[in-house]
Amino acid sequence: MEFSQWALAARQDIEAVLRRALEMRAPAVRRRGDQRLHEAMAYGVLGGGKRIRALLTVAAGEAASANRQDCIQVGAAIECIHAFSLVHDDMPCMDDDALRRGQPTVHVKFGQAQALLVGDALQTLGFELLTTLSVPAEQAVNLVRVMARATGLQGMAGGQAVDIEAVGQAMSQDALQEMHALKTGALISAAVEMGGLCGSISEQERQALGRFAARVGLGFQVADDVLDVSADAQTLGKTPGKDAAAGKPTFVALLGLAGAQDYARGLHQSAIAELAAFGPRADRLRELAQALLGRTH
Amino acid sequence: MEFSQWALAARQDIEAVLRRALEMRAPAVRRRGDQRLHEAMAYGVLGGGKRIRALLTVAAGEAASANRQDCIQVGAAIECIHAFSLVHDDMPCMDDDALRRGQPTVHVKFGQAQALLVGDALQTLGFELLTTLSVPAEQAVNLVRVMARATGLQGMAGGQAVDIEAVGQAMSQDALQEMHALKTGALISAAVEMGGLCGSISEQERQALGRFAARVGLGFQVADDVLDVSADAQTLGKTPGKDAAAGKPTFVALLGLAGAQDYARGLHQSAIAELAAFGPRADRLRELAQALLGRTH
Repeated sequence: MEFSQWALAARQDIEAVLRRALEMRAPAVRRRGDQRLHEAMAYGVLGGGKRIRALLTVAAGEAASANRQDCIQVGAAIECIHAFSLVHDDMPCMDDDALRRGQPTVHVKFGQAQALLVGDALQTLGFELLTTLSVPAEQAVNLVRVMARATGLQGMAGGQAVDIEAVGQAMSQDALQEMHALKTGALISAAVEMGGLCGSISEQERQALGRFAARVGLGFQVADDVLDVSADAQTLGKTPGKDAAAGKPTFVALLGLAGAQDYARGLHQSAIAELAAFGPRADRLRELAQALLGRTH
Repeated sequence: MEFSQWALAARQDIEAVLRRALEMRAPAVRRRGDQRLHEAMAYGVLGGGKRIRALLTVAAGEAASANRQDCIQVGAAIECIHAFSLVHDDMPCMDDDALRRGQPTVHVKFGQAQALLVGDALQTLGFELLTTLSVPAEQAVNLVRVMARATGLQGMAGGQAVDIEAVGQAMSQDALQEMHALKTGALISAAVEMGGLCGSISEQERQALGRFAARVGLGFQVADDVLDVSADAQTLGKTPGKDAAAGKPTFVALLGLAGAQDYARGLHQSAIAELAAFGPRADRLRELAQALLGRTH
């Protein structure tokens, strides 16, 4: 199967899990407030998106010979976490973005109070989705732990806190990488690790997957910075050049456009090298790395 | 042991778990953003509070002959959820409260962006705390599921969504009770149920605890509405009469002050009646119900 077909099928299955999860939780009575929250959650989590994190989970699950439906559901859980972070990130007190994937952001369409609750309830839904898998209960507990670490103070939320205090500040490359390792890298790494946890792999393979994920996560951010200055709004689905204009430190500002492109290429190659021992089981991971990091070179 | 001593000891143990959980997650490097988030999380979750929900967990755990340390940690997890909801609820786009327990609210002290992240990361911490208990993994997964249901669209977040759309609207007593059953009742019921899940009880006892919790949860809200009009700011730790002034529907507005006091008394009595089969194991639950609902009569 072509990669694009594989990705399309996985994306459809992930979205089917999300749609069903929301349908099952639809308020039974006609009550304005939670019906509107329900609608806004669907808008926030089902409004397109490339489902990169969930695809990483499904692809890592293939490398670990995991049950596909479990990986799809774990991927859907991670997409809930990702969507919650976008909804909160877009709010006026954070990045104040009016557009996301070319559409009005949740707070623009539903108001700030609902947007706050949408993010809160999507995080919750992510954890709830990890409680109805077919994996052994010990593995389900591990999945909750890994996702929680990647989401909270020691992961995404911590990285966002560094980010909001970094606006207008000079930042070394090391500091910038640390920030991204938390802000976006932690959840990307968790996505790969959780795919592995759904199946069975050796400790050595687990570590190789971890290094792969760290490189892909960082490379993805470098590629994002490159595209932020080189792509137009239509391709990007958001306002280009916004990070630079907001005085946020970027890899392009630190390394120049060509330097950042080179850096992304190097990360891409070293990520692929980590997958050698997996053989063809890791083909989807290789194709995903190409799709994510090959965009800039 | 006197109830007040028991509650004090449990409260101290719960706060020790919260303090240690935060210490273990302190950012290793001196980095402004996540250190500030860490500090703000401690401010948000350790700034006093009666720990009612956690005490209910510990007391329900005693009724179910559960391991006390597990109940303490589960209680701490629920307090993380409760604290996250308060931090987000106080934000300008929700209730816009500047004071909480007589102190500046998190967004007043740390800014709105950090307050948003504090709530997000406290929710995450709550789930993470459920992954390191001594209960069997199957029970840990059940605990995650019960807490998630009580927190998200079908619980607290759903109730808050009803609340924000209800301001200035006429509301029947049924609709008001449904709103509170979601907004505050779901987490209070989860606190009791989760204490039971830490130990072992019969299905009949589980159901009795559920009915006890539903009555205590509702009665607690009725008592809150009574105190909102009858207490002063010092006793209350927040601005009194605010809900009524904001046009929010209350039980006092619906039933009158004396009617609401009667209603709280009736709920108190029927809650206690549900505990009959437990004998002395449920004494702490009885004392807690008295402390929570006996305030108004």
